[in-house]
Amino acid sequence: MPPNPDIRLAVFGPGLLGGSLLMDARAMGLREVRVWARREEPLRIVKRRRLASFVSTDPAAVAEGAEIIVLCVPVGGMKALAERLTAARPARKAVFTDVGSVKGMVMREVAPVFRRAGFTFIGSHPMAGSEKGGLAEARPGLYAGAACILTPSPGASRAQVGRLESFWRMLGSHTTTMDAAGHDAVVARVSHLPHVAAVVATLAALKPDPGIARHSAGGLRDTTRVAGGDPDMWCEILMENRACLIPALRDMSRAASKIVSALQKRNRTLLRTQLIAARMLRERAMGEAPRRV
Amino acid sequence: MPPNPDIRLAVFGPGLLGGSLLMDARAMGLREVRVWARREEPLRIVKRRRLASFVSTDPAAVAEGAEIIVLCVPVGGMKALAERLTAARPARKAVFTDVGSVKGMVMREVAPVFRRAGFTFIGSHPMAGSEKGGLAEARPGLYAGAACILTPSPGASRAQVGRLESFWRMLGSHTTTMDAAGHDAVVARVSHLPHVAAVVATLAALKPDPGIARHSAGGLRDTTRVAGGDPDMWCEILMENRACLIPALRDMSRAASKIVSALQKRNRTLLRTQLIAARMLRERAMGEAPRRV
Repeated sequence: MPPNPDIRLAVFGPGLLGGSLLMDARAMGLREVRVWARREEPLRIVKRRRLASFVSTDPAAVAEGAEIIVLCVPVGGMKALAERLTAARPARKAVFTDVGSVKGMVMREVAPVFRRAGFTFIGSHPMAGSEKGGLAEARPGLYAGAACILTPSPGASRAQVGRLESFWRMLGSHTTTMDAAGHDAVVARVSHLPHVAAVVATLAALKPDPGIARHSAGGLRDTTRVAGGDPDMWCEILMENRACLIPALRDMSRAASKIVSALQKRNRTLLRTQLIAARMLRERAMGEAPRRV
Repeated sequence: MPPNPDIRLAVFGPGLLGGSLLMDARAMGLREVRVWARREEPLRIVKRRRLASFVSTDPAAVAEGAEIIVLCVPVGGMKALAERLTAARPARKAVFTDVGSVKGMVMREVAPVFRRAGFTFIGSHPMAGSEKGGLAEARPGLYAGAACILTPSPGASRAQVGRLESFWRMLGSHTTTMDAAGHDAVVARVSHLPHVAAVVATLAALKPDPGIARHSAGGLRDTTRVAGGDPDMWCEILMENRACLIPALRDMSRAASKIVSALQKRNRTLLRTQLIAARMLRERAMGEAPRRV
């Protein structure tokens, strides 16, 4: 399907994800771009950088007439924002969506608020971002080449799902549709587990003597990169997805125990088997992972 | 000290590290560059790419007249090579060194072989490399901006240590001197631990269903990057440094257990504390880590 920039877009929360969306929207010449933020300050920046045609701190005013409404706020603030949006008058058959990293809670608590107001919510999780957040880090093309998982609510029509898919594809993302439970199980393994691995590697490497970092190289830097992410945001994500994350972390602890045991017993065969298995999995994974552009 | 390219260099093992050394040596116009490899094939490539003035599969012939002799072979093969080098006639006060990732074993088993032959060995560990090995991956500038730890043996003169320091600094590395035990304790934390973290994160993320990698992003890719390294080389390194690595891995397991426990008890404060501690340590670390150029 060719890109169709004839869209009235509303973006709620111009941070890293929302701000990058605005930059792409401007580059693609979308018909209308409306922006909401909790505070005036980021809206002034959005205006100054000509990233929107209409800005306001009033949610309903921003959603007025919009066809695709993207909530780019932390998962914890989404329900309250949804409630303020029930008074909005978006376009007929408008699609409300988000960019949150967990979907069980969103589909359970946020989607019904929209449904009760007669609106359609379809969850989106574009796997894009960085350990650095905020509008200052936003950049055009952030979504290009990224995987994006959609979790439609039961009331969503095929046409609405298709419209949201086209929207993300227009930004260059690779869309897949699954239910919220499937989504949360997948991201627990490919995103939340690596985050915790980075955090525990950082703590174990550097807590005893932080100064030894001056002898480090790319291994420490890359393995721990995501541990530089916003603690509040990640606390919320990890806690929200704990049901899927805990079993994944237990698998990680078991794998670590196996390696410690191999080292203690000087069992090279067992150690090598683990290293080979990890390398094969990673090589296959990097062949399948979306190529960032 | 200004670079002094008036050096007769001998490189043993033209892989990623040895080959990159050859490229820098050629760019700096070293007086003489001699290369040894176990097999003829890599030597033919070295010759064809004009990376050496003399090549041979005979260790003593390659060391003939050399002032700095760098063993770029896996740690496990170093002692046998050292024994074959006892018959060599290098320059007077020549410095033998290596690029191995563990130093306790090297200084205990390899250095005495040289000492008995009347030669001086000083360990070197340039913290440079990649998960991809081999001469095909070699590149000029690999050592620029890297940390490099030197472990002198008791017989090394101040002048010899200074000469080796100048050599690595000429390549752009930041040198530090410490004993072998200190070195192994440091790299267990900043290099070997992150490696194991990457391996266990890969296994836990992807073993149950490798196909979910298609939904992954930069978090999985970077956290697991080093798990793509050569299993044989890393098996040797981790096993050799197990005495320092095991306590570091226990710290990592304890940190992981703390996070699992916080998730189970829905203790946001405890979880957030860990995330904040990791971020602060990482920010400080990246401020102190050598800047790669």
